[in-house]
Amino acid sequence: MKLLEDRIRRDGRIRENGTILKVDSFLNHQMDMELYNEIGREFHRLFGGEGVTKLLTVEASGIGVACITGQYFKVPVLFAKKSRSKNIDAAVYHAPVRSYTYGEVYDIMVSKDFLHPEDRILIIDDFLANGAALDGLTSLVEQAGATLVGAGICVEKAFQPGGERHRQKGLRIESLARIKSMSGEGIEFC
Amino acid sequence: MKLLEDRIRRDGRIRENGTILKVDSFLNHQMDMELYNEIGREFHRLFGGEGVTKLLTVEASGIGVACITGQYFKVPVLFAKKSRSKNIDAAVYHAPVRSYTYGEVYDIMVSKDFLHPEDRILIIDDFLANGAALDGLTSLVEQAGATLVGAGICVEKAFQPGGERHRQKGLRIESLARIKSMSGEGIEFC
Repeated sequence: MKLLEDRIRRDGRIRENGTILKVDSFLNHQMDMELYNEIGREFHRLFGGEGVTKLLTVEASGIGVACITGQYFKVPVLFAKKSRSKNIDAAVYHAPVRSYTYGEVYDIMVSKDFLHPEDRILIIDDFLANGAALDGLTSLVEQAGATLVGAGICVEKAFQPGGERHRQKGLRIESLARIKSMSGEGIEFC
Repeated sequence: MKLLEDRIRRDGRIRENGTILKVDSFLNHQMDMELYNEIGREFHRLFGGEGVTKLLTVEASGIGVACITGQYFKVPVLFAKKSRSKNIDAAVYHAPVRSYTYGEVYDIMVSKDFLHPEDRILIIDDFLANGAALDGLTSLVEQAGATLVGAGICVEKAFQPGGERHRQKGLRIESLARIKSMSGEGIEFC
């Protein structure tokens, strides 16, 4: 999606010797609703024919883009909650997620009330790199016996293994900006 | 706002002997975008003439409603991040928030890049009870020297002290559903 790639080129900042891409001025801290709307419209163009009954994301930075996208699909938006608690309610599906950024493992969970076998779920998230959040989210969908239609991702770091690993398992992933490489010199998209 | 009150009466569940209101089927876990749109429209009707330059909320459950509301205001939406880390970057404004639900204190923070003295900020959040999140958010706005236009709240527990305390300090708070009392028998709005 050229609009998003152009915006990343213009306003993204590459840090820590080319390993971190900061897009916090428009995507995941301060959020640009005009851009979000174009992203939501594009996800709907890509997945609108799949009979999606619900969008699933994980807190916190996936929520905004999932909500805007939900308007195009006209379906409810569900976000998985992060928990460090060891006492997990029996009324939830939960899955562990390893955070590479913070070096810790936490659980994500959704209420069993809101994921059902007849659901056709589209996962929405802002980033895909190592695929840890996607591991957790796909596990929640599987535990519920629901159908996973695919994953709509804003920015994929294609030089990290998460996207390839999930595609090899048969998951349809549509990433609107796929970064092939980045460094202090700049950024190259696939 | 009758639409929200009716929805709370219909789908809200009162737990723990009348102390907890669960609205997780439509407001803060699974989210109904049609309802969110009506909420966003109403916040814009109430605050649309105030020259708002930015919406401010706090992760996680405030983000969705703030984003949908941001479409009506046509301004960026900024969410404060929660942190348990003791190492706070000098490039952020931060403030402590006491969580009554979890009995802990955490910091919320926003990058100094995104709050400026010329900003006119509207705070958006899903719940107001003891006012702890609102304390933290107003502190961030004050630290930046920005103007706080008011706070748009979906559900206020008017029998808890947060709303009254902040109104006495001169803050304009518009709560779309104000709960006077609730118990196993039902719920009464102001």
